[in-house]
Amino acid sequence: MTQAFYELVTRRRDVRAEFTGEPIPGDVLDRILTAAHAAPSVGLTQPWDFVLVSSTETRKAFREHVLAERSVFAGTLSPERNATFDRIKIEGILESSLGIVVTYDPARGAPHVLGRHAIGDAGLYSVCLAIENLWLAATAENIGVGWVSFYREEFLSQLIGIPDGIRPIAWLCVGPVSRLHETPDLERHGWRRRRPLAAATHLERFGDQPGVHNSCATEPDETSTQ
Amino acid sequence: MTQAFYELVTRRRDVRAEFTGEPIPGDVLDRILTAAHAAPSVGLTQPWDFVLVSSTETRKAFREHVLAERSVFAGTLSPERNATFDRIKIEGILESSLGIVVTYDPARGAPHVLGRHAIGDAGLYSVCLAIENLWLAATAENIGVGWVSFYREEFLSQLIGIPDGIRPIAWLCVGPVSRLHETPDLERHGWRRRRPLAAATHLERFGDQPGVHNSCATEPDETSTQ
Repeated sequence: MTQAFYELVTRRRDVRAEFTGEPIPGDVLDRILTAAHAAPSVGLTQPWDFVLVSSTETRKAFREHVLAERSVFAGTLSPERNATFDRIKIEGILESSLGIVVTYDPARGAPHVLGRHAIGDAGLYSVCLAIENLWLAATAENIGVGWVSFYREEFLSQLIGIPDGIRPIAWLCVGPVSRLHETPDLERHGWRRRRPLAAATHLERFGDQPGVHNSCATEPDETSTQ
Repeated sequence: MTQAFYELVTRRRDVRAEFTGEPIPGDVLDRILTAAHAAPSVGLTQPWDFVLVSSTETRKAFREHVLAERSVFAGTLSPERNATFDRIKIEGILESSLGIVVTYDPARGAPHVLGRHAIGDAGLYSVCLAIENLWLAATAENIGVGWVSFYREEFLSQLIGIPDGIRPIAWLCVGPVSRLHETPDLERHGWRRRRPLAAATHLERFGDQPGVHNSCATEPDETSTQ
């Protein structure tokens, strides 16, 4: 199991262009959602919900909004970075088989959520743990997932009727795929390189990195994005 | 693989009392951190860091702070809920083999983080995806993980020298365990019951739950906590 799990983690990709549009079998979707729902949560609140969006009308409206937000972001970039960004597909909303909107309800189990009194965002964290379970389960089932985050929360809330006080955390494009790339899209298209693990590991105190030379700990990408 | 993955997701627990204190073999720790570091992240920023805390002095100081925060939370509870809370162990800081503090650096890849211009918390979400990878990898290696969240971020930042602008997201107690319970601690001790998946699943719009009667969608626990 151990080796197979690591292969799964490595195989997982954030999918945009490879959706086939074939339906997700019902039992597969059930298993994927069950895995998400088995995630740990602060105070056992399970503060997530899953809205399954297949309506073409809803997805088209969402996609239009996302493309407008893409332009907003593009407008902030230098010409060079914009040329790179231009090559990158950021969503597969219509090509995927299903949109899954994952939400966060801070009122669940409130006001006395065990483990949240000192850290208000702890419930938010729980929702993300569920999303990663969903993502890995989908990958194990050869189903692709692509997290779209080019949207305003208010727009999505209004689009699918999310009540006040509940926040949308993700729109996930989900469905069968033709393949999963070996290299993440953003690296393949020259947007950004992955960081070595050694640069992210510290001993006892933040900044103490015996195996890392200072020159390696800096990030060459960062200045070039300006 | 698929079945084995679902078993892994189901076996994973939030561990407090079952740590043996035995050391984590170096290659096992490397694999667990590698899995965490392979998580998806907004704009490929990988905004996480891992501070490995083995110092007994640091762990004792952190535990004292956590116990004080436990008292703060206990003080907000009704006598009945307090009696339930009293039975629940909330940390294994000293009994575990290692503390892993996971942090979030919003400056990584900034200012033009692809996928974050409209959702400021997107980087925070990425860190949690890495934590869930870590948690599942540890479980696959028969290593327990317990997420402690009874602390003030400023205290932990000062304790291990986290620079301004970088946030601690979790203190994870990590190490070999004698066993993993079948039922989560909070459920076993009567703090809260798990919610059926059907209550968390909606079709097309939030609130549309064909398979769920309204009476089942409410949460009996919620009123009883007051």
